[in-house]
Amino acid sequence: MIIVKIGGGSTINIEGVIKDIAEIKEEVIIIHGANALRDELAEKLGRPKKVVTSVSGYSSVFSDESAIDVMMMAYAGLRNKRIVELCQRSGINAVGLTGLDGRLVQGKRNAGIRVREGGKTRILHDFSGKPQSINTGLLKLLLGNDYVPVISVPIADENGVAINSENDDIVGVLQEAMAADTIVQLIEAPGFLDDPDDESTLVREMSGDELARREEQVQGRMKRKMLALKKLLVKTGCQVIIADGRRENPLMDALNHIGTVIK
Amino acid sequence: MIIVKIGGGSTINIEGVIKDIAEIKEEVIIIHGANALRDELAEKLGRPKKVVTSVSGYSSVFSDESAIDVMMMAYAGLRNKRIVELCQRSGINAVGLTGLDGRLVQGKRNAGIRVREGGKTRILHDFSGKPQSINTGLLKLLLGNDYVPVISVPIADENGVAINSENDDIVGVLQEAMAADTIVQLIEAPGFLDDPDDESTLVREMSGDELARREEQVQGRMKRKMLALKKLLVKTGCQVIIADGRRENPLMDALNHIGTVIK
Repeated sequence: MIIVKIGGGSTINIEGVIKDIAEIKEEVIIIHGANALRDELAEKLGRPKKVVTSVSGYSSVFSDESAIDVMMMAYAGLRNKRIVELCQRSGINAVGLTGLDGRLVQGKRNAGIRVREGGKTRILHDFSGKPQSINTGLLKLLLGNDYVPVISVPIADENGVAINSENDDIVGVLQEAMAADTIVQLIEAPGFLDDPDDESTLVREMSGDELARREEQVQGRMKRKMLALKKLLVKTGCQVIIADGRRENPLMDALNHIGTVIK
Repeated sequence: MIIVKIGGGSTINIEGVIKDIAEIKEEVIIIHGANALRDELAEKLGRPKKVVTSVSGYSSVFSDESAIDVMMMAYAGLRNKRIVELCQRSGINAVGLTGLDGRLVQGKRNAGIRVREGGKTRILHDFSGKPQSINTGLLKLLLGNDYVPVISVPIADENGVAINSENDDIVGVLQEAMAADTIVQLIEAPGFLDDPDDESTLVREMSGDELARREEQVQGRMKRKMLALKKLLVKTGCQVIIADGRRENPLMDALNHIGTVIK
């Protein structure tokens, strides 16, 4: 089983990804972002995204009720359904689901984000949390009947409330629950870059140890992604390929190891 | 089986409907609108809804690609997922689906809408069509595993392309495919009114013959609804209750025949 994570950047060649999925024989689960779409919509609606940085240095989106509304529109609405449509047009019998649907992805609400404000530490509460378990029964029901799940945030908290969560964390929980052997992450870069500003510095292979070392180097959202990857590799030892989602055949090229292969 | 159609008006008490659904024992399929939300979003995004009236007198939304985008955000995104969330919070294991997902609702694209413009008849092409069949396999798979389907537009055309369709028509095809014995339509009025401007003129019971007669009287969207209802009754003889979605217990009251009962 391959988990294909389609990044939420605006230049990802989604049509190309779906065409590639139509060609491969292995079981596939799609999980997608929509952050460019979300940011654009939030801006148009006059509700710009709020980003906060915790005292431990991880930055995250602050998700109030209005931010969850925008997320539902951009992720679960427009992006998810346009991907399902592309699948259906390519002969892939896709079913789009958020973590709320059948409590597919059940999480734990964050206690709060500790931030520094005006020299003081404050705790901010929002609708966000960490994924903890997958309704594998529902996924297997669909996969067993030849449906391809297309998954998006929000996920459900302990009480069924819609919360935001990092896609990289969801991928980790999903991989463990479904025992996928390959994860392909399609992003707006050729893979993991030694120098983020120089695409020629692609790192073609990375061991788990190197990943841990590099986590120290990076900042912001990439730090969070590296942390999620590290957890994934420690737990399972599956193959992760970070590859360029902007190419003509993003998934085929990724499966041919054009990108960063982490084992 | 009961099909509960939740209207898309802004004053419908959705929380009340979901609480009622949590109380009843019968199998339920939810189908919902979101027109107030869609109109509000379209306005905010500077893409106001276009309504055209065909030469035969039926008015309908003109759905270009941008209108389908807005529909996906409002119906499949925000409204569908907030309803699924309310269900999950009330212990109902809901799964939200559009007609695209697993080609749940397969339709036929409209050839075009014949309109009069500047004294001439023109044909306008858009992304809209009529539902024709239901993927009963997917619905039964979910219902058989105790999931409650929450259905929304868009639906899929012959090629898997997202198209808009009238919810009343979808309800008709759904009823026939699933052999539901009761349809409850929750709207922003006490039921069918003899005088649309006077809520005291509620028609408590209506026969199929009377429905046909009244179809002649009404205009615009209500005409379309009456036509869909007529088709439904002619084909199946199931019970239709049109009731007030703004009440504290909208579904319970409807099932107790507070509204218009059509047999």
